[in-house]
Amino acid sequence: MSRFFSTDLKDLNPYIPGEQPVSGGFVKLNTNESPFPPSPEVKKALDESRVSELRLYSDPTAKTLTDAIARYYGVPSDSIVTSNGSDEILAFIIKAFCKDRGLAFADVTYGFYEVFCKLFGVEFVTVPLDRDFKIDVNDYKGLSQNIIIANPNAQTGVYIPVSDIKTLVSENKERLVIIDEAYVDFGGESVIPLTREYDNLVVVQTFSKSRSLAGARIGFMVADAALAADVKKIKYSFNPYNLNRLSILAGAAALADKEYFVKTTAEIIKNREFLTDSLKLMGFKVIDSKANFVLASHGAESGRDLYLALKKEGVLVRHFPGGRIDDFIRITVGSAEELAVLIQKLGIILQGAENA
Amino acid sequence: MSRFFSTDLKDLNPYIPGEQPVSGGFVKLNTNESPFPPSPEVKKALDESRVSELRLYSDPTAKTLTDAIARYYGVPSDSIVTSNGSDEILAFIIKAFCKDRGLAFADVTYGFYEVFCKLFGVEFVTVPLDRDFKIDVNDYKGLSQNIIIANPNAQTGVYIPVSDIKTLVSENKERLVIIDEAYVDFGGESVIPLTREYDNLVVVQTFSKSRSLAGARIGFMVADAALAADVKKIKYSFNPYNLNRLSILAGAAALADKEYFVKTTAEIIKNREFLTDSLKLMGFKVIDSKANFVLASHGAESGRDLYLALKKEGVLVRHFPGGRIDDFIRITVGSAEELAVLIQKLGIILQGAENA
Repeated sequence: MSRFFSTDLKDLNPYIPGEQPVSGGFVKLNTNESPFPPSPEVKKALDESRVSELRLYSDPTAKTLTDAIARYYGVPSDSIVTSNGSDEILAFIIKAFCKDRGLAFADVTYGFYEVFCKLFGVEFVTVPLDRDFKIDVNDYKGLSQNIIIANPNAQTGVYIPVSDIKTLVSENKERLVIIDEAYVDFGGESVIPLTREYDNLVVVQTFSKSRSLAGARIGFMVADAALAADVKKIKYSFNPYNLNRLSILAGAAALADKEYFVKTTAEIIKNREFLTDSLKLMGFKVIDSKANFVLASHGAESGRDLYLALKKEGVLVRHFPGGRIDDFIRITVGSAEELAVLIQKLGIILQGAENA
Repeated sequence: MSRFFSTDLKDLNPYIPGEQPVSGGFVKLNTNESPFPPSPEVKKALDESRVSELRLYSDPTAKTLTDAIARYYGVPSDSIVTSNGSDEILAFIIKAFCKDRGLAFADVTYGFYEVFCKLFGVEFVTVPLDRDFKIDVNDYKGLSQNIIIANPNAQTGVYIPVSDIKTLVSENKERLVIIDEAYVDFGGESVIPLTREYDNLVVVQTFSKSRSLAGARIGFMVADAALAADVKKIKYSFNPYNLNRLSILAGAAALADKEYFVKTTAEIIKNREFLTDSLKLMGFKVIDSKANFVLASHGAESGRDLYLALKKEGVLVRHFPGGRIDDFIRITVGSAEELAVLIQKLGIILQGAENA
């Protein structure tokens, strides 16, 4: 730390992203990317893009993309704010709304919520998941903080129904409820339509998972227009041109190809069921997931040992040390081929553990 | 404002970016973009980019680009932090270092410095430029705040020599000196080499102007490795994957084509001299600029009237109302053709003013 670093940030512990090996050769099942390339429409849009126009700033309103999202979800354009990935819009939302009220979130969820709170000096409380790693919305009653819930939840993949979120939003009119739907397209139902009814609901989504565009960095939020205007105030005080020209084109093209989206998400759901069944057959405990990953543990090997043994075999999964899911590994639902390799390697590793 | 907006942000006045007309038809000289397309190498890099890999997150260290910058400027890679445009890195720097000490900047400079301070609750003081709109580094003696200087200065284009900055940095070891070199490539000399000598100097640059890549959103900073590590801590607490895959490629390709860079910046310098001379011949007062814009005023018409009259004629320039440069218009140095249109339209407008 330099002698110039702000004293109020001395306890800041940055988020640790999953490993991004620069050299290839890994079966990469650690950061919940899609095994499928983006829609062919994205390539077409980028091929046709006039690279010469990169000399000009991008449209700060990202109108092409914003309007496409508005049409897709049947919400007004002024209820949408786009961002450089969903991490950025989450940061803007927490900066905009959480200083006075603080923020409540599950003890097992996306690790970045806590980091954002520390970055912006926001008080937070964690609400334990039940012993099956489920969120009980009743646990959020009587708290004074705003609420953020990832649904399906990060790390666990556990999903709560729209009715639960409706309860939460309607019973907490003076608190903001933020629903992070990064993984909702793999079998969940979005609460975006509820933003037309409730002025205390913010829904966040990303193009990184179900739209196969993690590398283009596109996220967005939908909420009542007054909330969207507040978040735009943060964006215009931070980085007005936060989305580059090519990503705006790529996002709009991906959204337009609904057929590809339906096909690829269905394939991932199918692969998830295959992965879950296979793991269970090998003696794994698998948390029931509606996301593009599963969380699994095995009595014979610790989460850390499984992670390390798989890495040695060329398969990257994610291990979250030290908390309630220390025993588990989180496995991205890759392609059928990738999952076959994973299963085979796990077989060898567990065989070795049995013989040891 | 929604009832949820943080009370500590109630006085936040976002930065107002220059108009970005969605429909074409304007001679656009209002946001200091390059009149030239990016280097042909950028198109080649993007054509060869495997769009399918957009399914994967970008490299959070942006190693390809970071290493290219390190080689270009002869500085270590760990002294560099890349960002989604230079606005983002400026925000990170102010967040990282300015809460305890506050920040001092000129009364006429990039308007975003004040916005960042308000966003992050940083106290600031403004230091008046002299009557010729020049920065006198002696005016920054005896202050307790960190210092940020745009060099050449935003809005005015006035440049101060490396020796002045060296004085500032060496006489203020316990304050951070941040030099925003967005416009340095149009005739100034960068102080990046000084970052190897001084651990209290941060230099910020952008690919938006001299590299013709405003729409790709690429910025970076260079500083002592300890300062760079602190800023990375902010980045990894905000948006680790802040640069998308395509912009990383575009930036590295643009940097590799030094010949194109030399040619296009020389052309802009030549056009600036033409523009300055032409304006002076028409009776304008023109501030001596080392940037890709000039600030000019005319006794016969107010800055606002000139701006509006030009807009009516299809030429966009920038007017900054209410401050010391209210009488002026800021004109981006466009292509020779664009400047010919501007001069012609100004002639008509001033003729009209004379006859009125």
